[in-house]
Amino acid sequence: MGTVRYLEIAEELRREILSGAYPVGARLPSESDLAARWSASRGTVRQAVATLAAEGLVRSSQGARRIVLRHERRHSFGELNSFAQWAEGIGHEARSRFLSRTRRPATAEEAERLALAPGTEVLAVLRLRLLDGQPVMVERTAYADWVAEAVEAMPEDCRSVMDGLAADSGVAAHYGEHLIDALPAGSEDARLLEVRRGSPLLRQRHVSATRTGRPIEWSDDRYRAGSVTFSVSNSAVAAPLERHPGGGGER
Amino acid sequence: MGTVRYLEIAEELRREILSGAYPVGARLPSESDLAARWSASRGTVRQAVATLAAEGLVRSSQGARRIVLRHERRHSFGELNSFAQWAEGIGHEARSRFLSRTRRPATAEEAERLALAPGTEVLAVLRLRLLDGQPVMVERTAYADWVAEAVEAMPEDCRSVMDGLAADSGVAAHYGEHLIDALPAGSEDARLLEVRRGSPLLRQRHVSATRTGRPIEWSDDRYRAGSVTFSVSNSAVAAPLERHPGGGGER
Repeated sequence: MGTVRYLEIAEELRREILSGAYPVGARLPSESDLAARWSASRGTVRQAVATLAAEGLVRSSQGARRIVLRHERRHSFGELNSFAQWAEGIGHEARSRFLSRTRRPATAEEAERLALAPGTEVLAVLRLRLLDGQPVMVERTAYADWVAEAVEAMPEDCRSVMDGLAADSGVAAHYGEHLIDALPAGSEDARLLEVRRGSPLLRQRHVSATRTGRPIEWSDDRYRAGSVTFSVSNSAVAAPLERHPGGGGER
Repeated sequence: MGTVRYLEIAEELRREILSGAYPVGARLPSESDLAARWSASRGTVRQAVATLAAEGLVRSSQGARRIVLRHERRHSFGELNSFAQWAEGIGHEARSRFLSRTRRPATAEEAERLALAPGTEVLAVLRLRLLDGQPVMVERTAYADWVAEAVEAMPEDCRSVMDGLAADSGVAAHYGEHLIDALPAGSEDARLLEVRRGSPLLRQRHVSATRTGRPIEWSDDRYRAGSVTFSVSNSAVAAPLERHPGGGGER
């Protein structure tokens, strides 16, 4: 079907801004000029610019000509979902170790998160991530049955399971739902991450789903405190960040 | 100027879905039907539905008629920014105590985050938040000098400083940037939150800014582990969540 037009324009404008075509503090061209440039309606241009404003790339200004706020490249969706891709993007050396890959029936939570019938077999993977030689994250992922074989076949030194699935099996993640909280390190986490039991971990649990909403993986990733920070932008028109009581996971 | 049309349509459709007009699993009407209903172009309708898909409310489907995924109401921007509003929204009793309100020069980080000249006076507020009678969060907020007087004037039992600023001074938060990580409780945090020193805390630091991008507050909020979870949706077209090494705060 093709990408929605305002997103295409937003992408081109984003690229230009990030490449320095507009210094920080400079005003973008007027809506009419932008519309003429892309042969689009002013409404479409307005939506494109609103998208960039929601990302914090430009801000509103009197006279409605947006001002460029920053030049730092924001993450792509893939960089969040692929630890290795992210680490390399920021110039760090990432390594990982598959500690186990086991087929077993889904737990109740896994079945729920992966939209599988209770008891369906999943591939449970335990993986340790190292950044510049230091263990920073323990990953416990349940892969849905319909991708289990493909994931089992991946080599030990596989950089990114999700990238592999996309490349080899045409299974691409399009949506993500993330739950972020903190918890004390238990025995296994403490041993793998080389920290004291009870020390703080930042936990990020997430489902990745395809474009049609089919869940691929449900993962529980635990980071040593201080090793990473998650950032989120929001605005009155795009508010993707929410707070939930307790474990936040109940559906 | 008025809200962008596709956002208005998204809001109306969102309300209908959340009120149960479309059961989970039901397909939305076709693009042409939706366009006719709102006297809008198909492109505008497509953008409205894409907005709902990015929120995880509907999902793509063959034939392009989106399927409703869920009925739970997502947070508004205000509910994330106002702890009291959020707590009440989920049926919990929220109380708070202002522990101190002090004018002092901004630290280097505060000046940076609030876009103030180094040494500008800010209003530093220390506040403890209780949920159903239990301390859950310690808030350390620096308010920019230009709102300091208004914040100082707020009563002890003030429910939400940000709501108060909007109501009394016309200063409304429109953008937010959030940094989420985990850290061990220091002495003051441990005492206020009634936890052991070194126990895990979930930290959320954030800047709230006006529609023109002017920072209002820079806050460091620390939650007892297990008391809250943050959730974020993302997709290949709307990826607001990023991972950063270390404290993530360097600009």
